[in-house]
Amino acid sequence: MITTDLLIIGAGPTGLFAVFEAGLLKLKCHIIDALPQPGGQLAELYPKKPIFDIPGYPSVNAGDLIDNLMEQIKQFQPGFTLAETAMTLEKIDDEWFEVVTNKGTVHRAKAVAIAGGLGTFEPRKPPIENIALYEEKGVEYFVKDPEVFRDKKIVIAGGGDSALDWSIFLSDVAKEVTLVHRRNEFRGALDSVEKVQVLKDQGKINLITPAEVTGIKGDGHVESLIITKEGEEVEITADYFIPLFGLTPKLGAIADWGLEIEKNAIKVDNSLDYQTNREGIYAIGDVNIYPGKLKLILCGFHEATLMCQSVYKRLNPGKNYVLKYTTVSGVDGFDGSRKEAEKAVVKKID
Amino acid sequence: MITTDLLIIGAGPTGLFAVFEAGLLKLKCHIIDALPQPGGQLAELYPKKPIFDIPGYPSVNAGDLIDNLMEQIKQFQPGFTLAETAMTLEKIDDEWFEVVTNKGTVHRAKAVAIAGGLGTFEPRKPPIENIALYEEKGVEYFVKDPEVFRDKKIVIAGGGDSALDWSIFLSDVAKEVTLVHRRNEFRGALDSVEKVQVLKDQGKINLITPAEVTGIKGDGHVESLIITKEGEEVEITADYFIPLFGLTPKLGAIADWGLEIEKNAIKVDNSLDYQTNREGIYAIGDVNIYPGKLKLILCGFHEATLMCQSVYKRLNPGKNYVLKYTTVSGVDGFDGSRKEAEKAVVKKID
Ligand SMILES: Cc1cc2nc3c(=O)[nH]c(=O)nc-3n(C[C@H](O)[C@H](O)[C@H](O)COP(=O)(O)OP(=O)(O)OC[C@H]3O[C@@H](n4cnc5c(N)ncnc54)[C@H](O)[C@@H]3O)c2cc1C
Ligand SMILES: Cc1cc2nc3c(=O)[nH]c(=O)nc-3n(C[C@H](O)[C@H](O)[C@H](O)COP(=O)(O)OP(=O)(O)OC[C@H]3O[C@@H](n4cnc5c(N)ncnc54)[C@H](O)[C@@H]3O)c2cc1C
Repeated sequence: MITTDLLIIGAGPTGLFAVFEAGLLKLKCHIIDALPQPGGQLAELYPKKPIFDIPGYPSVNAGDLIDNLMEQIKQFQPGFTLAETAMTLEKIDDEWFEVVTNKGTVHRAKAVAIAGGLGTFEPRKPPIENIALYEEKGVEYFVKDPEVFRDKKIVIAGGGDSALDWSIFLSDVAKEVTLVHRRNEFRGALDSVEKVQVLKDQGKINLITPAEVTGIKGDGHVESLIITKEGEEVEITADYFIPLFGLTPKLGAIADWGLEIEKNAIKVDNSLDYQTNREGIYAIGDVNIYPGKLKLILCGFHEATLMCQSVYKRLNPGKNYVLKYTTVSGVDGFDGSRKEAEKAVVKKID
Repeated sequence: MITTDLLIIGAGPTGLFAVFEAGLLKLKCHIIDALPQPGGQLAELYPKKPIFDIPGYPSVNAGDLIDNLMEQIKQFQPGFTLAETAMTLEKIDDEWFEVVTNKGTVHRAKAVAIAGGLGTFEPRKPPIENIALYEEKGVEYFVKDPEVFRDKKIVIAGGGDSALDWSIFLSDVAKEVTLVHRRNEFRGALDSVEKVQVLKDQGKINLITPAEVTGIKGDGHVESLIITKEGEEVEITADYFIPLFGLTPKLGAIADWGLEIEKNAIKVDNSLDYQTNREGIYAIGDVNIYPGKLKLILCGFHEATLMCQSVYKRLNPGKNYVLKYTTVSGVDGFDGSRKEAEKAVVKKID
């Protein structure tokens, strides 16, 4: 069982920054995310794209922003439960909330911040009759751990950036990479398309286009795939099938936690602390809604900050908190590190 | 007369970022600030100090953050009225507000955002009887334009970073720099103290310590100063006297604009758009107050963003605004520039 002060559901930019603000208030955090990596939409949907409206950044790549946030929070040593989906949220007594994931991991915390964005990303699945039988038995909709594919024969399907980029990456890891797409044209960053062309020419990626994976065979695990190209079927041996046809966010389990929901988002008290209708449970970032709400990264940062103040008061009743500037007071990490402005000296000039 | 869509009072980080968010909504901005440079507290009080709680910046120097914000907003070509204090704010008809500065500059705008921070910075003045007579006639509490001092004889008084840093900077501009401080010890960045020591040794800064400027003489302009050192008076010729004894912020004129004031700040509707009790007048950043308010830079960014949406609706009644992501839609500057993510290509691999 994992216990912490503040449990954060969702490792997007909002959830990550909440760790920092909580840390300034000496609150320990743990984050759960359904994705295998932190970063939410930025890491999963547009890691290489620039964002122009992060204050103080004329331009920053989404992936770099997440790296910077991870660097900014590291001294507060957040725990991570990745590639697991939070399924239930219960208040078990006066002090503790309990959150259990789809893998059965139990988390207890004194307050919960839902930073679930638009929800978990549900993969668009190819219409292959028996595909459900092979899910997590050779069919993978996400690349959680590339090492799984080391020296394996894999087939990737799709025509966008994910299909291109994972084909490139895994061509170095897997024994054999086959990329199947129903058109001859791919849609993605020029750079990625060109790299796949080179790897194909070098024989490091097999390309089958225009074609579709139409069948899966195997005894308890993927063993071979049927690929239909211009009406003709071929069967190729494969250990893994990775269809990358895009993701649709679904609020999912969060919708059943007794929280007021409006337009697929959680209603919060924006006039105070972004708390939901259940005391001690907050919702911040894209997942919440209130009058005037904007689903922007910079808004999540503010919401996370005010939320942490409220959690602090909840966990330290009666204690009077005085806001400290990081510039003036420095930042003391839970790992013993200290960041601080260079101190002024008092020195004679003669 | 200067006319604009949104007039911003205060060029701190909050006011500056408001220009960006307004620009995304095609609203033109003009900023007034009492200080000679943009940046508010960051530029005036701690330009070289690191800030640790700007989201996505593990550490950023206050001065660099302001430079980055200036870079981020430049394509929206904000106008600036610097070194002038907004004194009056009137609604002159159904459409226009009018703001007049202490120098008589008239500004008209369709909406006003007060981003005045803790107010204007009032200099702490030395207790010299006739000092008021010489203000702006040789006595300068701020260095507005260093060129004013070219080839002049100047006396700087003070023992902190401002006194040190301006002595260093002006030693290259003025004919003669004399630094007077009532102690032998200075309090500031080690680097600055050491640099003054070097310049003193090279004869580029005259140092008089422990001493105080106790008298000013001159006919309509500073001509000489009386300096008292250990009980003895000396008179030295000088064109300028720059006492740098620190600044105290004062809400000042803003307090008389018919806005609800609480704890020296302007009450706003944080449940919607940070509007004050006067329609069309908003207050954002350190200058406002609402339940749970935190005087932090990142909060000002969020407030500025929601405020701009409200101004947009006010100026475009009935128009339905759909939020656009900068990553997806790019940023079109008023100067004809365009920032955008690299476009995906659709390209055949064969
Ligand atoms: C293409 C694109 C471009 C964009 N451009 C911009 C831009 O320029 N500027 C801007 O400000 N915003 C932009 N956005 C929006 C921005 O990405 C979101 O505002 C931001 O990601 C919200 O952050 P978040 O942390 O609230 O949520 P998310 O980033 O959505 O993260 C939420 C996380 O919660 C996880 N999660 C959800 N439910 C559960 C559960 N039950 N259990 C475990 N984990 C769960 C998800 O897996 C996800 O990782 C863009 C979005 C897209 C798609
Ligand atoms: C030493 C120090 C360290 C700090 N460290 C941090 C930190 O680590 N993190 C953090 O988030 N915050 C920190 N702060 C606070 C931060 O500086 C403020 O939150 C921030 O400056 C507020 O920005 P603003 O734009 O709202 O106002 P300000 O920066 O105060 O700018 C307001 C501007 O309005 C102008 N103005 C006011 N009235 C008028 C008028 N009538 N006419 C014309 N101009 C006017 C002023 O001249 C000023 O330039 C620190 C502050 C100090 C002093």
